[in-house]
Amino acid sequence: MASIKPSVPKGTRDFSPTEMVKRNFIFDTIKSVFRKYGYQQIETPSMENLSTLTGKYGEEGDKLIFKILDSGDFFSELDQLTELELIQKVQDKNPLPTNATFGDKVLHYLRSKDQAQQLRLASSIAPHISEKALRYDLTVPFARYVVQHQNEIIFPFKRFQVQPVWRADRPQKGRYREFYQCDADVVGSDSLLNEAEFVLIYDEALSKLGLKDFTIKINNRKILSGIAEIIDKADNIIDLTVAIDKLDKIGLDGVIKELMDRGFTADDIEKIKPVILLEGLNREKLESLRSALASSVTGLKGCDELETVLNYVDLCKLQTANLELDITLARGLNYYTGAIFEVKTNEVAMGSIGGGGRYDDLTGMFGLKGLTGVGISFGADRIYDVMDELNLFPEATSQSTQLLICCFDKDGEKFAMPILQQLRKKDINAELYPAGAKLKKQLDYANNKNIPFTIIIGSDEIESGLLTIKNMKTGLQEKCSADQILEIISK
Amino acid sequence: MASIKPSVPKGTRDFSPTEMVKRNFIFDTIKSVFRKYGYQQIETPSMENLSTLTGKYGEEGDKLIFKILDSGDFFSELDQLTELELIQKVQDKNPLPTNATFGDKVLHYLRSKDQAQQLRLASSIAPHISEKALRYDLTVPFARYVVQHQNEIIFPFKRFQVQPVWRADRPQKGRYREFYQCDADVVGSDSLLNEAEFVLIYDEALSKLGLKDFTIKINNRKILSGIAEIIDKADNIIDLTVAIDKLDKIGLDGVIKELMDRGFTADDIEKIKPVILLEGLNREKLESLRSALASSVTGLKGCDELETVLNYVDLCKLQTANLELDITLARGLNYYTGAIFEVKTNEVAMGSIGGGGRYDDLTGMFGLKGLTGVGISFGADRIYDVMDELNLFPEATSQSTQLLICCFDKDGEKFAMPILQQLRKKDINAELYPAGAKLKKQLDYANNKNIPFTIIIGSDEIESGLLTIKNMKTGLQEKCSADQILEIISK
Repeated sequence: MASIKPSVPKGTRDFSPTEMVKRNFIFDTIKSVFRKYGYQQIETPSMENLSTLTGKYGEEGDKLIFKILDSGDFFSELDQLTELELIQKVQDKNPLPTNATFGDKVLHYLRSKDQAQQLRLASSIAPHISEKALRYDLTVPFARYVVQHQNEIIFPFKRFQVQPVWRADRPQKGRYREFYQCDADVVGSDSLLNEAEFVLIYDEALSKLGLKDFTIKINNRKILSGIAEIIDKADNIIDLTVAIDKLDKIGLDGVIKELMDRGFTADDIEKIKPVILLEGLNREKLESLRSALASSVTGLKGCDELETVLNYVDLCKLQTANLELDITLARGLNYYTGAIFEVKTNEVAMGSIGGGGRYDDLTGMFGLKGLTGVGISFGADRIYDVMDELNLFPEATSQSTQLLICCFDKDGEKFAMPILQQLRKKDINAELYPAGAKLKKQLDYANNKNIPFTIIIGSDEIESGLLTIKNMKTGLQEKCSADQILEIISK
Repeated sequence: MASIKPSVPKGTRDFSPTEMVKRNFIFDTIKSVFRKYGYQQIETPSMENLSTLTGKYGEEGDKLIFKILDSGDFFSELDQLTELELIQKVQDKNPLPTNATFGDKVLHYLRSKDQAQQLRLASSIAPHISEKALRYDLTVPFARYVVQHQNEIIFPFKRFQVQPVWRADRPQKGRYREFYQCDADVVGSDSLLNEAEFVLIYDEALSKLGLKDFTIKINNRKILSGIAEIIDKADNIIDLTVAIDKLDKIGLDGVIKELMDRGFTADDIEKIKPVILLEGLNREKLESLRSALASSVTGLKGCDELETVLNYVDLCKLQTANLELDITLARGLNYYTGAIFEVKTNEVAMGSIGGGGRYDDLTGMFGLKGLTGVGISFGADRIYDVMDELNLFPEATSQSTQLLICCFDKDGEKFAMPILQQLRKKDINAELYPAGAKLKKQLDYANNKNIPFTIIIGSDEIESGLLTIKNMKTGLQEKCSADQILEIISK
């Protein structure tokens, strides 16, 4: 059989060892920060019942859910049976008492016959039914988890989750059909301390990853509502925010034109203008907002909430992040009810590398009302691209091999094995290249795997016990005894 | 809407924070040992092309593959178009040159019409097609990976992989439809050093997990072939091994009866008996085997291979494992060609917790011939159960919160925040319970999360700056300043 080179499905990826080391660096860093702030990891199954997922992502989202066919051979044995054998089998499973009347027996037979027919039908339909689907995000499974396990959970429940999700999106550059999401949420606490801690988490995690200039944008849904309220257009909040959101791209004149096109009056625009043109420090922006929104109770509540978050953050010191109140930020308008977050790097042109917000009714869709929550997400794939472009990945990590021992024959192996095990006992990742290969091949192997040190065991070394360790980067060689290897490697 | 409590699909599981800490302990330990021996992590997509998977697991296995429906709304826009509009659209995509003849135009129209009809057909069939499936194990995707990336890989390629797999098995106790596999394989090296290192990896990983008495059984497929050869029944090797495999359960007489039932003669049995009754140390068993298999070249080759592995292992010192030559071990007889491994704990009644072996043609199924490999697998779910039963999980890990600060009001929060951030800067996992809850609720939270230390911030503490830190296990309280907390926690 001539064979075609195998491939992976469209929109999915293999991750090579080099890529995995980098991806692990990102995920391990973010996880360690989540843990530092008291967030605990959970995992949910890759597949959820279809009923759990459908209707949660809008019409467009529902179409992108990957459905799984019911599988298995639960019915295959039925196919071997005749009609009468199948009825007999059903009867056997539900035997009549020995004192059954004739009527009982007739009824029993008829019922078993009906059941047998239903089984046969089920058997023919089964391979074409789908009752399960791959999860589309981590949020709905989390809501399902909270409702299902509500009696075991002590609230506030701070959880994080790092797992792949699947979407039947048209694959394109940077958009995959399988990708990891990296979420932290707390449910059951309305304290704005949580919002502040998410700012700190973004700051700490992205600083640890080596990002040197990034902005955490923060807004509040109630402020957006307030803006719509002061012009008496609460119903047009979407139109309003879509237009304002374009300020960066099309400027004030463009936004005004767009607002007019969307049916806002000159009078409306006059009232909104000071809000759109908000400038200065966060506190100054807040002051301007307060006066502009003075007539909206909701708007002022939004200002209060934002100020409380800023106050909490001020009690600590941000390591790297710029925290910026940005009232044009309007993501997740359909479900966020309080704070809205978005994170952008200023070092590379790239969409947002994180986002989140507060929602007041996450678990309502599964019948548990009134549980408030707030959460954030890290965009791992984009962070990967940013770090790759800025060369931020550490060269060597504890995940790589640190030393390769090369040898030529069985005697070399015999000499090397105890040295090798001694190093491993000291938690050094080390390898022995199996005897029989040319030295060039062995050194190529070391270079390819980015192994920083090599030792070559020839007959001289075996006789004298004196080894030569080579730094593969600098080319520097050093004579040493087996006991000194650890010292040299750890330098 | 009255709502039903949501659930997960049959045979799948949620993992709670407590379970995740334990699972991570297992996976992190095994991964660190894999890395120590130079194995590098890869990941492959959850879904593979159906053609990659089918035909690889036998008829029974194929039935258990979960198929995924092709999804997405790539065709939905077509449904809006009339026949003529669709044809026009197809024509627009492939415009004719301006100097096209009348004949060209007719042909172009007819071709576009055909194409439009095909599109319409595809659109109606698409939602019912499955071209993808969830991976069934990590071995076939690994083989696919090696073939697909053969030009980027430097051999020998030592890879490990820890990812979930899916099987549409009938769910039952201890058998799930989604579970993690944990595999390490090396391909492109026939050195028996690899087999020896897998013995060392099992020994080190399971010792690190706290197992105190376990056996690594080793056999060689060539020895099994040899036994069949010396009685001239190479074709009956399966019958032979199935019978011998039962020695533990049914004793020698039982095995003899079973062999007779399966058509072996008294003469055959006389020849096999010394092999079945093999006793003593591994080296003694090997000597007996050599004389019993003296007439089989293959059998003797198996003995040589086994001896080489034992010699390698003897150069090191096993920490805990008993390494036992067991010629009744016959797993994977269809694909293993050399060494066969199986690991069992002797502390708990449980099936094997690991296994593996050498195969000579893993990648042949994808057209890359002659690449030998050897690999092992850890049974993570069973190891979890063993450790749970033996109480081997560490009580606290770096994954848990170490300190909860309790407070009563905004002033308490304000006082606590800088202390909290100072501890976090020193890599202490710490939390502040948001103000407003009763103390009992806060301490319940600490107990439920197994947080070992708490500090309560009242007005006295704020005034004096003197804190009281409580050890939640012992109940012991200690007065301290903010600077002394770290010291007390780390004790």
